[in-house]
Amino acid sequence: MSTSLPSFLASQTAPRLAPPAMLDALRARFGERCSTALAVREQHGRDESPFDVSPPQAVVFAESSEDVAFVVKLAHEHAVPVIPYGVGSSLEGHLLAVQGGISIDLGRMNQVLSINAEDLTATVQAGVTRMRLNEEIRHTGLFFPIDPGADATIGGMSATRASGTNAVRYGTMRENVLGLSVVTASGDIVRTGTRARKSSAGYDLTRLFVGSEGTLGVISEITVRLYPQPEAISAAVCSFPSLAAAVDTTITVIQSGVPIARCELLDTNAVRAVNRHDRLTLREGPMLLMEFHGTPAGVAEQAEAVQQIARGFGGEDFEWATTPEQRTRLWTARHHAFFAALQMKPGCRAVTTDTCVPISRLAECLLDTVADADASGLPYFLVGHVGDGNFHVGYLIDPHKPEERELAERLNRQVVARAIRLEGTCSGEHGIGLHKMGFLVDEAGAEAVALMRTLKQALDPKNIMNPGKIFAL
Amino acid sequence: MSTSLPSFLASQTAPRLAPPAMLDALRARFGERCSTALAVREQHGRDESPFDVSPPQAVVFAESSEDVAFVVKLAHEHAVPVIPYGVGSSLEGHLLAVQGGISIDLGRMNQVLSINAEDLTATVQAGVTRMRLNEEIRHTGLFFPIDPGADATIGGMSATRASGTNAVRYGTMRENVLGLSVVTASGDIVRTGTRARKSSAGYDLTRLFVGSEGTLGVISEITVRLYPQPEAISAAVCSFPSLAAAVDTTITVIQSGVPIARCELLDTNAVRAVNRHDRLTLREGPMLLMEFHGTPAGVAEQAEAVQQIARGFGGEDFEWATTPEQRTRLWTARHHAFFAALQMKPGCRAVTTDTCVPISRLAECLLDTVADADASGLPYFLVGHVGDGNFHVGYLIDPHKPEERELAERLNRQVVARAIRLEGTCSGEHGIGLHKMGFLVDEAGAEAVALMRTLKQALDPKNIMNPGKIFAL
Repeated sequence: MSTSLPSFLASQTAPRLAPPAMLDALRARFGERCSTALAVREQHGRDESPFDVSPPQAVVFAESSEDVAFVVKLAHEHAVPVIPYGVGSSLEGHLLAVQGGISIDLGRMNQVLSINAEDLTATVQAGVTRMRLNEEIRHTGLFFPIDPGADATIGGMSATRASGTNAVRYGTMRENVLGLSVVTASGDIVRTGTRARKSSAGYDLTRLFVGSEGTLGVISEITVRLYPQPEAISAAVCSFPSLAAAVDTTITVIQSGVPIARCELLDTNAVRAVNRHDRLTLREGPMLLMEFHGTPAGVAEQAEAVQQIARGFGGEDFEWATTPEQRTRLWTARHHAFFAALQMKPGCRAVTTDTCVPISRLAECLLDTVADADASGLPYFLVGHVGDGNFHVGYLIDPHKPEERELAERLNRQVVARAIRLEGTCSGEHGIGLHKMGFLVDEAGAEAVALMRTLKQALDPKNIMNPGKIFAL
Repeated sequence: MSTSLPSFLASQTAPRLAPPAMLDALRARFGERCSTALAVREQHGRDESPFDVSPPQAVVFAESSEDVAFVVKLAHEHAVPVIPYGVGSSLEGHLLAVQGGISIDLGRMNQVLSINAEDLTATVQAGVTRMRLNEEIRHTGLFFPIDPGADATIGGMSATRASGTNAVRYGTMRENVLGLSVVTASGDIVRTGTRARKSSAGYDLTRLFVGSEGTLGVISEITVRLYPQPEAISAAVCSFPSLAAAVDTTITVIQSGVPIARCELLDTNAVRAVNRHDRLTLREGPMLLMEFHGTPAGVAEQAEAVQQIARGFGGEDFEWATTPEQRTRLWTARHHAFFAALQMKPGCRAVTTDTCVPISRLAECLLDTVADADASGLPYFLVGHVGDGNFHVGYLIDPHKPEERELAERLNRQVVARAIRLEGTCSGEHGIGLHKMGFLVDEAGAEAVALMRTLKQALDPKNIMNPGKIFAL
């Protein structure tokens, strides 16, 4: 492995190679849907993290849960790793084949299997993306709210317990997955949960797999909750004289219980980047980007309440995105922030933080983090799902300069240590992956991580399910 | 054991007796807080289920997580069962010492450890009841919404994944527990979760223990989410010409997305029982008991929307509980329904169903169930958290007449089979306990239950944590 890789990569066990008999069996079943071409393998051995590519030995393009089960059964027999792959939008190194193995690409499992509009549920294959799902259900008047920015797959979002801009109102994948089909390490297909809204029947297997990052099983189908499209939606931006003013506004809004649907912070660097990338003319200062859902009267009431709070902290008058087109343009720009920021420094990659703290601690956590970033001299941007206490700093590094990577990682360690001290978490929504393995112990404690390992060993005794992620085994 | 016990009791393994050395060690540490008096043991070997008492060998009154850990460590060493006890309000036989062992009474662990009003969280010892918590936080303007009727402990509610009347708006214990302290089977104290609203850091241990019914560990402390008391609250009752009309109203309200806070159904029998028990004069017919939370304008808007829907199905005009006192009286009456119904047939006990189905299936599930109950000749009552698709039929049986118990159990089996066919669950909120063990396999499938057993064996290899519940081992 490359010497430029961080220590958590160097500490991985040696790759476990699939023997020729296994590769032959894969080719016999999948034909051209099993690829060992270098370009395909390299595409599947990386993600949006700054880590170097670590290609799998082969890539299988699955079209059904049974396809997945076939691969896993073989892998189990031969003790070879398997790594589920959606669209490759992980930010934490989840997809790197650090111990070798077979990548299972679920992208062709893109069928919406059923829409139960009258129950506000849908069941999808793991490779359906969130945008695809929303297109397919638009005619029902319902929508699926979870929105991590990237057009990720529902499978990948389940595996990382994703959330994003709407979570402050609608919850995360934790709250919105009702049931799963999972291929376990032995290659069996297990169904968890029901379509009922709640249940007290046995252990919560659904939520054990949600957020397990492919290390306990491959999620192949997901039943999710849907919501009626609100009668009225209003989006607004509000500029503030300082980051502190924007953060204090957010804290007050949440504490007062206004059911705001989205409450996103962009720092001046992020606003500048999306202005340039999306040809917008947003005022280049700290900004909250908000959305309100409800009845027309309810939306007006919420917006007025928030505007009053914002004024109290020196916020400008709201600028409204009055048409659906303007609204879409605004949120598209927000979703481009990551890539827009990367373009501010050609050739760079981003080391991204993902801490989440109790709302009363947000000001301290965020402002101290920004002060450290400013002092470091590294270019950076900040965006945040601040209504949840979650924000991301992206440190822009030249991947060929180890000293920049080390500086960014040092800053990230400082942010995480601060968040844990403030009773928060090292990962609000991206997962542990490779990048935050050390932090998990700092946050959860040795006893809790030992308990997680016990679960891993019980469900995956041969350690073939995305090994080397979350914790070293 | 009594020959009148159902088969799932007869199939239990033989009691595992605590040796004198273990009892001596308990007495040495706990003195009078360790009791082997028959009355105390019998009180701890039963609950609100219709099963005969099955007393533990001793009862320890714990005052701290360390007390619990001490008992569990000893029990682990001697391979003796431990059974956590809150206030004894289980309906499914969770507390019966069917394999012997030590009952750990957590009722003296009744301290609210911290209130973080600015973060909308509180941390409590497991023995704090929901009413006690709400009294202690009233001055903050916040409240804890989960309300299963009984004044249960937060520990017990976590262990059974409880919900109740407010869940349609605020979710269940699954959504409202942020973190736990748990004493594991080896007697270690593990902390799970953080005070952040969301996290993607590692396996969701919190939700593994929530709903595990004491079989994976003893929950000793809980951090829960709190909510601002709504600016306005309105409660109303609405009578309907038929159960079908009340159910159809509920379904339409939920499908249209009105954020109703409580939506409870009482059948004529339940209304009659609470009228008599609480000296009320509610119209004795099928009734929805509703509550709306929000701003004054929002509450008025919600209520008007629901009134219009109700009228469409022949509902009467809403009768409003306009003062807080009237509201309290109404909900207190609702919470008395179970005991009020028991008093309709002196000396009886209730066999209670707890199915929950997708909302579009509620009419079929509920009305067919009522038709079967009517045909059976057994007295019964029906109450339901119908906004969630969850309802309870209580069949009133003479515990000395095995044929009545058998008839009630047969009716219960029919309800469960129906709910599972309709893609629902055998337990919406009471848990599996002893009573619904057979149903869990019907619902989840052999593969999923095998996976649950694997987890149980990994975390509790000596099978000492509330053994014989959820599944036989």
